Amino acid sequence: MNNNLPIGIFDSGLGGLTVLKALKKLLPQESFIYIGDTAHVPYGNKSPSAVIKYSTDIVSYLEQRPVKLIIVACNTASSIAKEAISLKTSTHIIDVIIPIQQLLAEQSSINKIGIIGTHNTIRSHAYDNAISKIQPQITIYSNACPLFVPIIEEGLYSHKIAYMIAKEYLEPLIIHKIQALVLGCTHYPIMKSVILKTLPKNILLFDSAEITAQFVRKYIKKNHMLSNIEKPSLQILTTDKSIHFEKFAIKMFNETIKPISIINI
Amino acid sequence: MNNNLPIGIFDSGLGGLTVLKALKKLLPQESFIYIGDTAHVPYGNKSPSAVIKYSTDIVSYLEQRPVKLIIVACNTASSIAKEAISLKTSTHIIDVIIPIQQLLAEQSSINKIGIIGTHNTIRSHAYDNAISKIQPQITIYSNACPLFVPIIEEGLYSHKIAYMIAKEYLEPLIIHKIQALVLGCTHYPIMKSVILKTLPKNILLFDSAEITAQFVRKYIKKNHMLSNIEKPSLQILTTDKSIHFEKFAIKMFNETIKPISIINI
Repeated sequence: MNNNLPIGIFDSGLGGLTVLKALKKLLPQESFIYIGDTAHVPYGNKSPSAVIKYSTDIVSYLEQRPVKLIIVACNTASSIAKEAISLKTSTHIIDVIIPIQQLLAEQSSINKIGIIGTHNTIRSHAYDNAISKIQPQITIYSNACPLFVPIIEEGLYSHKIAYMIAKEYLEPLIIHKIQALVLGCTHYPIMKSVILKTLPKNILLFDSAEITAQFVRKYIKKNHMLSNIEKPSLQILTTDKSIHFEKFAIKMFNETIKPISIINI
Repeated sequence: MNNNLPIGIFDSGLGGLTVLKALKKLLPQESFIYIGDTAHVPYGNKSPSAVIKYSTDIVSYLEQRPVKLIIVACNTASSIAKEAISLKTSTHIIDVIIPIQQLLAEQSSINKIGIIGTHNTIRSHAYDNAISKIQPQITIYSNACPLFVPIIEEGLYSHKIAYMIAKEYLEPLIIHKIQALVLGCTHYPIMKSVILKTLPKNILLFDSAEITAQFVRKYIKKNHMLSNIEKPSLQILTTDKSIHFEKFAIKMFNETIKPISIINI
């Protein structure tokens, strides 16, 4: 294993850039290859077999680059395609659900939790199953928020429409007096401020982007995979040209990022 | 040409079912094959070259079935891919923009018109160009309404969220005192009642589904293409399994429709 190989990250679109940003901050010496599957975004309304195909195709591509670790920075793919991905590759894989599970394992005071995500993520019960395994006493309330991704992809994440829709989606969870809310979609941290303003102040927010980045740092250190490269690189790829994606990536990583290349997977 | 061949219709998703429904009413003796490209929905945020590829692939499939006429029941594909489709096939092609153009050619009292559609449709200026050719005195105001398709695909087309977003999108057109509004997306007739309640009563609504169906009837009669089949058939196909699509199709055409098959294009 060459520790100076980049870390591969993928998502259906721009959501996973939140994980990338958190990772770059925590692991500044690492190189990254990010793939946004803009040809197939959103994954949330595609069939499970379609999501498995798209995810395993991307993993095969990343494996050939090669990369030292692959992060499934998409909750829908993590929920549905994790097993298929693991069968496909011998590269280390980290999804966005295990980090939340591990964090909750350390919490003893939470017994009511809310989870929001795409239809596919919520329908898969991936979070419920992962959390029940380690904290069976936690009662889980979940709600699919299918309009959050289009709102974010359209750049309306701080628009008044975002507030109205957040209220609509979060109220059914708030009435159950949840103590914490898991943002079960890597897009959602982008509208974190709207979500925070909608939630009562005593509800904890678990942001899978931030939590995954912390988990990856620990994982890399524990497995002696830290890079010692002098000039780490960042490559952002998409599967279709997307003006929104480009604008958002530049906004997140400033003008210095290299041009976004389009790959045919 | 065998007049008893079916008419092929396609859209990125379920929007074109509004055209199919209007057609079935006006041409009850015709057979239809409908393709919803649910593997690639929405087209509105894909690159022009991706939309061209998806559209020409579907047209090639329909041509091989074969069909006697292909209706591009998607404004994004009509705006971007019409030329590429025409080069690809010798089958008769009708898009959803020409019918609106022809209808406006007969109107002399309209001089301010609003057009709503996806980003791709609005950005292509396909309506502006088509209308300017025949009625250069008409001033056109357009607005992309990217959240309407996800709202409709999520079944929220009569939810209060739909009203809030409609107000947001339509007000910038209403202030220009438009006399008519073109629903430049075949999804939009599904939320027609919300749009009608948002518009001042004096604004005419041009529904491309209804207008296209009337245009097709005239076209078929004029070109002596009417079927005389005794038991016309209806086949609905999608490119990925979609629970929302199925629910919506059953709601529109009742339980009697045949199971929706999935094709790999």
